Amino acid sequence: MKLPAIPVAIRICAIALIALDQSAVAQNAPLPSWNEGPSKQAIISFVEKVAKEGGPDFVRPAERIATFDNDGCLWAEQPMYFQLAFAIDRVKALAPQHPDWKDKEPFKSVLAGDTMAALAGGEKSIAALIAATHAGMTTEEFESTVRQWVATAKHPTTGRLYVQMTFQPMLELLTFLRANGFKTYIVSGGGAEFMRPWAERVYGIPPEQVVGSRGKLKYEAREGKPVLVKLPEVDHIDDNVGKPVGIQQLIGRRPIAAFGNSDGDFEMLEWTTAGSGPRLAMIVHHTDAEREWAYDRDSHIGKLARGLDEAPKRGWVLIDMKKDWKRIYRE
Amino acid sequence: MKLPAIPVAIRICAIALIALDQSAVAQNAPLPSWNEGPSKQAIISFVEKVAKEGGPDFVRPAERIATFDNDGCLWAEQPMYFQLAFAIDRVKALAPQHPDWKDKEPFKSVLAGDTMAALAGGEKSIAALIAATHAGMTTEEFESTVRQWVATAKHPTTGRLYVQMTFQPMLELLTFLRANGFKTYIVSGGGAEFMRPWAERVYGIPPEQVVGSRGKLKYEAREGKPVLVKLPEVDHIDDNVGKPVGIQQLIGRRPIAAFGNSDGDFEMLEWTTAGSGPRLAMIVHHTDAEREWAYDRDSHIGKLARGLDEAPKRGWVLIDMKKDWKRIYRE
Repeated sequence: MKLPAIPVAIRICAIALIALDQSAVAQNAPLPSWNEGPSKQAIISFVEKVAKEGGPDFVRPAERIATFDNDGCLWAEQPMYFQLAFAIDRVKALAPQHPDWKDKEPFKSVLAGDTMAALAGGEKSIAALIAATHAGMTTEEFESTVRQWVATAKHPTTGRLYVQMTFQPMLELLTFLRANGFKTYIVSGGGAEFMRPWAERVYGIPPEQVVGSRGKLKYEAREGKPVLVKLPEVDHIDDNVGKPVGIQQLIGRRPIAAFGNSDGDFEMLEWTTAGSGPRLAMIVHHTDAEREWAYDRDSHIGKLARGLDEAPKRGWVLIDMKKDWKRIYRE
Repeated sequence: MKLPAIPVAIRICAIALIALDQSAVAQNAPLPSWNEGPSKQAIISFVEKVAKEGGPDFVRPAERIATFDNDGCLWAEQPMYFQLAFAIDRVKALAPQHPDWKDKEPFKSVLAGDTMAALAGGEKSIAALIAATHAGMTTEEFESTVRQWVATAKHPTTGRLYVQMTFQPMLELLTFLRANGFKTYIVSGGGAEFMRPWAERVYGIPPEQVVGSRGKLKYEAREGKPVLVKLPEVDHIDDNVGKPVGIQQLIGRRPIAAFGNSDGDFEMLEWTTAGSGPRLAMIVHHTDAEREWAYDRDSHIGKLARGLDEAPKRGWVLIDMKKDWKRIYRE
């Protein structure tokens, strides 16, 4: 067995870190796509505070947990959740194997190209589309389907790949937090298995830091090999009160910072800020009809009403996309 | 805002690591409590293989996931699972608030000091004890109860604190793997919320790397503060086929190394070794009646039969506690 190596390097690193890190915030000129203003300032002063060793608000790195909603927070969500666009594309791809779909809603309308009619049935229609396209296959088969879709499918109005509709300022925020010892998590109403195949590449967030909705799984043997089969039954809906529950189940400790955009994030922000010590809660407010979309109280997707009303009195910071962001989408 | 610091240090570290790490295994003389032999050799050659940059079996650090069962693998489990000892102690502590327990099994027998009679009802009795002692309080209240118990409760025959009955060779194995870029996880049939309060201090495993059984949680307000209340309903049993499911739900990728001791770990080892590339599966075989306990096929706790039969043909390594370990419990 060859000897030492890393221990020496680690000692060198430790010395280097002690010598160089005089409680400064890591990253030279962080958040370049953020305009100067209260949002950028709130982030920087929070990070300075918790990272300042010996300071009154110091938080040890292991407890620097930051959670991010995905739809409407890290990437866009209009005119419909991108996962639903994926489901619709899958219905079209799978239709030849399901001749009965021609006469059966919501599939019939999807295949006729009338998405709005397909979704007229509300949650029940969406559940049927998700079950038909997200279950019955193994986790590995699903993962490869998602990878393929993400690499090719384009958004109907921007013409961008969906992963190119991730928000540049939020990517910079993720990087800034990680450079300062934070562990960054996604906590989304979207499916964990839909996000994991690309979250590491796109956000730098590994699968084990993705909390999302999930279906039940069944362990069984197929052709002599063990597989996990995705069942059409819901196991957890990671939205509203489901977010603190998902956080507790998967992370097991309370975040000190949380970022959302809709009322589905309310309980996550509430749970985060109810802890003691320094806390940061921010809401991405979609105010830019020109560069992205403008919506809040009356939107059927990403509705934000209670959050708007309560943010000021709870000390939560509203991010004004139009004013605060120099650019919207990733470069 | 004060400037740079960590980025420079990180660059220095990266250079130092590249310069010094010539595919050597990190840690000088690892696994000191392991006798020379096939078990120690299996661990070291596996780690050398996956850590050797440019080698045919190199695994990038992000995918170096190792999972460990807890009861009987990282700490002892006789004469009963330690979590059950905790539940019994809790029944005694809570009895004054539950006068009806005096006449109601399994509580009646517990209070009369007859644990064997209390457990005569099998799983149903155990479920009743767990529900009565693990539910109805908030996650924070439960956590503080566990912390207190772990700091004071002693094992009936060894007289040690339960956390002092963790296995020294396994602690060294955890350290060795982490020094070589592995992320170490607990994947146990025990309750996640029972292990998390002390796993970080005792094993160096943070709460977010503890996968276990769990009850349902309810988010609600108590005295104006949001809390998560532990409900008496099971959400997930992390044993047998539940282990690969728990791994997929919480980690989202397949481990490359897994360590167990009973047939409850069979599917975890099977799932781990069914992946492609280098794999390591090991089973702690309790063979030391003098220093610990000797049991396998006929034990009602930690039964190991299928694992014993199939280990050789599957290439899984049996750890012989008596032969392989210089010492059993932590120092």
